[in-house]
Amino acid sequence: MDSSQFESVKTKTASLPDRVADQIAQLIIDQHLTSEDKLPNEFELASQLNVGRGTVREAVKLLVARNVLVIRRGKGTYIANNPGEMEDPLGFAFVPDQIQLAFDLMEVRLQVEPWVAKLAAQRRTSEELERVQAYRVLVEQEIEAGRDHLPLDMEFHLSIAKCTHNQAVPKLMPLILHSVSLFGSLTRRSLRSYTIKEHRLIAEAIADGDGARSETVMREHIEHNQQKLEAIRRQMEVSQEEKPK
Amino acid sequence: MDSSQFESVKTKTASLPDRVADQIAQLIIDQHLTSEDKLPNEFELASQLNVGRGTVREAVKLLVARNVLVIRRGKGTYIANNPGEMEDPLGFAFVPDQIQLAFDLMEVRLQVEPWVAKLAAQRRTSEELERVQAYRVLVEQEIEAGRDHLPLDMEFHLSIAKCTHNQAVPKLMPLILHSVSLFGSLTRRSLRSYTIKEHRLIAEAIADGDGARSETVMREHIEHNQQKLEAIRRQMEVSQEEKPK
Repeated sequence: MDSSQFESVKTKTASLPDRVADQIAQLIIDQHLTSEDKLPNEFELASQLNVGRGTVREAVKLLVARNVLVIRRGKGTYIANNPGEMEDPLGFAFVPDQIQLAFDLMEVRLQVEPWVAKLAAQRRTSEELERVQAYRVLVEQEIEAGRDHLPLDMEFHLSIAKCTHNQAVPKLMPLILHSVSLFGSLTRRSLRSYTIKEHRLIAEAIADGDGARSETVMREHIEHNQQKLEAIRRQMEVSQEEKPK
Repeated sequence: MDSSQFESVKTKTASLPDRVADQIAQLIIDQHLTSEDKLPNEFELASQLNVGRGTVREAVKLLVARNVLVIRRGKGTYIANNPGEMEDPLGFAFVPDQIQLAFDLMEVRLQVEPWVAKLAAQRRTSEELERVQAYRVLVEQEIEAGRDHLPLDMEFHLSIAKCTHNQAVPKLMPLILHSVSLFGSLTRRSLRSYTIKEHRLIAEAIADGDGARSETVMREHIEHNQQKLEAIRRQMEVSQEEKPK
């Protein structure tokens, strides 16, 4: 299970720097290196892996591109915070119909997030609950100050995902929350009125450890967002028709 | 929505090749280039983006590392098949407890895949159904020949995901199917006996357009897999205890 597990994620017919990149990644996994840890220097890696320093340098560049390593200016090369976790890892930006994608993601959220809220209510620790409440308050402050609350809104939903004690859920959640950022600038204003109220209901149900109620209020929250998206799509279609060709 | 949407997936404090890589990615998005399309050559890109050829070359390397571009030997640089879709995009290989991760992913599958099967039954076209059946047959052939059926088993599940007509589902599915490959080598043999039977039931329910039944048989299939994982974990714990420290 240990040394071969990385083989499966390796690209086929890989170049030498590619293969060395995989070896370095394997070394990070095997030695349980974390974001506190500095990568051994080029000389060491080159002699350890029996390749030239140029190859090591190329491999390091590849691992930076894959967010396994980060270069801290003037300090050296370190292990990334969430190694291997990419921004937009599924290439959502390349999907031609971004509006349909937002709807498709919302459909997934409607299936997944009420269940996540239920698990959160059942499994959360008091520290985790405190974090949910803290983000809820921060979102309210942003809304009341008239600022963009969406980045913190995502953190609120993510803090609920972390209450599930399922390691896969908080990793998957940013992907399905992508719909939020897609429609963010369009919906921001009109979402404000009910976001505060609904977030409070969700946090309350999780605090009470009430799985069924958490599920219900989360479902209603997402359905509400979905309806908002529908309204926006209709508006966009109308303004599209009015536009001269 | 169009030209700024890629901004959000850009790494902050990016280097010049990084920024040029993002510009090339944006060009691919804006011009709807697909895997049939060759990337304009270095000279063209350099002059179009007003940077040196060396920078373009570095940017192309980054985009290859991100699976946006692929180099076809002797042919040139092309757009990747699923641009931006990485292998192991969430860095699952870096999660320290791989066994717990497999269980966590199985818990997600149990929530998501029965719903996916239901949508598949409701929305599939006859061509999509044919592909599901074709993969079902291929899996059976692999099992009967005593070969590793898991790669095709994943394709079977993926072909069902494509029946949902939800663009996000087939993109998310390989992530949650990761659990299959994790425990693959351990479970392969004992899974064979019931995989054929259960796959047939699933394909049948989808063919009949019976959403509720598709949901049920898919749930039973995954629960069965989950129980198998439990048994393997217990075995591993026992053999762990027997091992001298």
